[in-house]
Amino acid sequence: MSNQKSKNSAFAISYPASQKVFVKGKIHDIRVGMRKISLLDTISVENGQEKREKNAPVIVYDTSGAYSDGFANIDITQGLPRLRSEWTAARNDTEELPAFSSQYCNERLQNKDLDDIRFPVTHLPRRAKAGKSISQMYYAQQGIITPEMEYVAIRENLQNEMLGIASHITPEFVRNEIAAGRAIIPANPNHPEAEPMIIGARFLVKINTNIGNSALSSGIDEEVEKAVWSCKWGGDTLMDLSTGNNIHETREWIIRNLPVPIGTVPLYQALEKVNGDIAALTWEIYRDTLIEQCEQGVDYFTIHAGLLRAHLPLVQNRITGIVSRGGSIIANWMNIHNAENLFYTHFEEVCKILAQYDVAVSLGDGLRPGCTRDANDAAQFAELSVLGELTLTAWKHHVQVLIEGPGHVPMQQIRANMDEQVKLCHGAPFYTLGPLTTDIAPGYDHITSAIGAAQIAWYGTAMICYVTPKEHLGLPDKEDVRAGVVAYKIAAHAADLAKGHPGAQVRDNALSKARFDFRWKDQFNLSLDPEKALEYYQASHITGENDHCTMCGPHFCAMKLSKKLCNGL
Amino acid sequence: MSNQKSKNSAFAISYPASQKVFVKGKIHDIRVGMRKISLLDTISVENGQEKREKNAPVIVYDTSGAYSDGFANIDITQGLPRLRSEWTAARNDTEELPAFSSQYCNERLQNKDLDDIRFPVTHLPRRAKAGKSISQMYYAQQGIITPEMEYVAIRENLQNEMLGIASHITPEFVRNEIAAGRAIIPANPNHPEAEPMIIGARFLVKINTNIGNSALSSGIDEEVEKAVWSCKWGGDTLMDLSTGNNIHETREWIIRNLPVPIGTVPLYQALEKVNGDIAALTWEIYRDTLIEQCEQGVDYFTIHAGLLRAHLPLVQNRITGIVSRGGSIIANWMNIHNAENLFYTHFEEVCKILAQYDVAVSLGDGLRPGCTRDANDAAQFAELSVLGELTLTAWKHHVQVLIEGPGHVPMQQIRANMDEQVKLCHGAPFYTLGPLTTDIAPGYDHITSAIGAAQIAWYGTAMICYVTPKEHLGLPDKEDVRAGVVAYKIAAHAADLAKGHPGAQVRDNALSKARFDFRWKDQFNLSLDPEKALEYYQASHITGENDHCTMCGPHFCAMKLSKKLCNGL
Repeated sequence: MSNQKSKNSAFAISYPASQKVFVKGKIHDIRVGMRKISLLDTISVENGQEKREKNAPVIVYDTSGAYSDGFANIDITQGLPRLRSEWTAARNDTEELPAFSSQYCNERLQNKDLDDIRFPVTHLPRRAKAGKSISQMYYAQQGIITPEMEYVAIRENLQNEMLGIASHITPEFVRNEIAAGRAIIPANPNHPEAEPMIIGARFLVKINTNIGNSALSSGIDEEVEKAVWSCKWGGDTLMDLSTGNNIHETREWIIRNLPVPIGTVPLYQALEKVNGDIAALTWEIYRDTLIEQCEQGVDYFTIHAGLLRAHLPLVQNRITGIVSRGGSIIANWMNIHNAENLFYTHFEEVCKILAQYDVAVSLGDGLRPGCTRDANDAAQFAELSVLGELTLTAWKHHVQVLIEGPGHVPMQQIRANMDEQVKLCHGAPFYTLGPLTTDIAPGYDHITSAIGAAQIAWYGTAMICYVTPKEHLGLPDKEDVRAGVVAYKIAAHAADLAKGHPGAQVRDNALSKARFDFRWKDQFNLSLDPEKALEYYQASHITGENDHCTMCGPHFCAMKLSKKLCNGL
Repeated sequence: MSNQKSKNSAFAISYPASQKVFVKGKIHDIRVGMRKISLLDTISVENGQEKREKNAPVIVYDTSGAYSDGFANIDITQGLPRLRSEWTAARNDTEELPAFSSQYCNERLQNKDLDDIRFPVTHLPRRAKAGKSISQMYYAQQGIITPEMEYVAIRENLQNEMLGIASHITPEFVRNEIAAGRAIIPANPNHPEAEPMIIGARFLVKINTNIGNSALSSGIDEEVEKAVWSCKWGGDTLMDLSTGNNIHETREWIIRNLPVPIGTVPLYQALEKVNGDIAALTWEIYRDTLIEQCEQGVDYFTIHAGLLRAHLPLVQNRITGIVSRGGSIIANWMNIHNAENLFYTHFEEVCKILAQYDVAVSLGDGLRPGCTRDANDAAQFAELSVLGELTLTAWKHHVQVLIEGPGHVPMQQIRANMDEQVKLCHGAPFYTLGPLTTDIAPGYDHITSAIGAAQIAWYGTAMICYVTPKEHLGLPDKEDVRAGVVAYKIAAHAADLAKGHPGAQVRDNALSKARFDFRWKDQFNLSLDPEKALEYYQASHITGENDHCTMCGPHFCAMKLSKKLCNGL
């Protein structure tokens, strides 16, 4: 990480006409960062007199953490402020360990060759004290409203209190949803840099972004930059799917600098440890990997524990077989060893480890359909049924649960997919990849899938995993990440509107009023991608003309005529 | 139009691994052009032996006309072959006029200053003989299956006959839908260059593209190029919304070179004729414009005849008032003259003119909502109800009808919008702009609207009007047109799948099988934008490696592992 100074300032995030504001908690001593967008006055002329009307600022959900706080000191060699450390410590049910528990982790720490790429600061891991349960689900079930719960209640409400919009989302409502397993707050105490956020059908729809190097494709710098970049555009959580070299060190840099929860698929790293030899994969290696990542601060793990041997014959008549990486690896492992899925047979042990760090489990769908023709088939639903069983096992240990879903599903089958998840998985939040609604547009799968994602989120999916234009073709670069995140923010917001999330409509209305007023700057500033909107506008617009829309030209502008009409009536 | 030779070859369209094939009619002497995509063999290794399996070619709907026919001689100064001239002549119910009937048209023809920009060939106009009805609707009601009807029946069936897929779409089925007004074939005899296509809920979902210069933004060359370009990517019809100079001459170049039906909003040109002075607009000027455009070969007109004076107060509480250009112009006209909408009061006369040229009417929604908050309001539905009345008037004259729809509609209100249209408009096909499902993403409105377009098309909308990334910000350039068309082809195809259109799934399955086989070239060739897919692939891929997916890398490729597994089981 050379030339740190310029690098660090490059990480700062700024949004036009925006200010970081903090809303204080009423129960706990917390402050929740949000983004306030200031608007210009509406100016009209009435009887020859200029009339000015104030437009209230709009407060929007902010995933950029300290990067957009002008007063914060960004230094990626030190990591972000450890926001939640004190909350965890105050509960007095965890302890800081004298050393890391993972053998692999300790080997890496002792390897001098890695000094150059190692994150400079070491934070010792924190784990539940013996006999203690420390998950948000456990606290909620005890009737405790944690700082995390109050934090997300404030965060979800945006500016509702200010605007007098009624909202069902109170800290107690949050507690109740968490207790029932219908929502989760992924919040590993070893990732105190992450701001609390909630994933559940009765809250704002969230989006996950994926990054990750595969076989030498990108370095640490680039991965950290992409991770922060995804937060800039609105990514709510981030999965690091790296399969290349130095996974451990890369992840450390990302976690220490990431203001949102991070997820991984531990199997990928476990397989790297045996040089990709599926036959050599053992429970002991996997277990050590889980502990390594729990102590680093990963907030949720995708674990493909629901794919059983009995399901494999169901895949034979598919067009695209198994398209989940984790699913195909474990299917091969079962076949080689003539044994049941080791994640299934060891699931109780998995839960006991995760419970000690409040790491959530995201039950992977190894049999998700890889094309529209394979959607909602017997293989997919057989696995989903097992995910439902595993949900109850995890909950027994107070481990928070997400259920992963497809994939490729044509529109007319999306509702059935959602209904089946609700029926089989006891209300645990659904987390889907897309779904893509057609297979015929590689290069545009952020669009084929945003169509499906908007629908399934409206039907109740709590988090949608983004797809970039490079899906099926290659690994996303920064511009692909931006295109994927914005497409998914659109899908998520369209679903928030459709679900009637309190206050979701405010931003649409403010932007539309700005549009009608020809307050161009406000229109850009309120948009999901102000830079892109401005760039397109400037490409067409003649400087100094502000009273008509660029598409119609001055003589035919509908809104200009409409205004004239309204004044005349 | 200088340097014609190079220009003309630049207009030729080629698709990779594709061949233009023609399917002959059984009733009429017609041949329907389609695109056949050839595929490679599937190669696998079994017991050390290479095994090859043939993959059947895939035939896809083709909107590129003669431009993709290697044997056709493209010369844009001569225009496309006049495919339908003989069919019209054979019916013996039209006559070629000795001269154009529009005063304005004749003035333009006699103006020597326009010689440089005038299309070089003049085709005299054709009109119904006195007392004759010549619309496809009329023929259908008489029980006649025209060549146009058989043409679209073949075109909609793709390769179903070859594959033995049952299809309800027969020439008789087409005739019946046209007779009932549930579908239209826009086919002005004065635009014989256009290939017949059908717009109706029981057929493939169609997409319209818009082009048009506003105030000097682009010239004739550029508009013709954009028009052909939109056909390359799959535009089914094209609306020329020009409001700048030389509309008449520009349109002539476009029509003579356009293999798809063309629509216009005649009001725009009528207003140009009075220098944008809304007060000066008269029925006589509008009437002459209708005749001018009917005789040039426009296939359908958007006419804002349903917006009445009584509706104007309903607009007062909207955020964005009236956002339809045509709607705002006519609203102002009514206000200035204290008179009812002249398109409404003259609607019977309009229909009598259109009937003589089989020009379809697309009843414009002047009060379409311009933001999600204004959707499905009293203003919109009051106008829609009048459009229903006007539909019956048009049908009395055997004029084919489309009903235009919104606009901006949040997801949860889309179904109600469609249902209301069905209820009020007697089954006439719905033609919507988007709808955009959120207002907060200028720069990405091809995506906000593709989400809504896919849904409303699934619910029964027959044609969706594309939106480009420049919507609300500026006029689209070529790349914007491509992005808009592909986004809308995705939405339309997703809806075709959802509706179970016979044969729609074939292309998805073929592409998915190619993906699973690592037949990369086939995957690209079968996609909606082969060039983009290839470009993205090449950016990530190392030459010579073909047996794994670029996203996972060689060690973790799910499909590679899945294949191994299937062979092993």
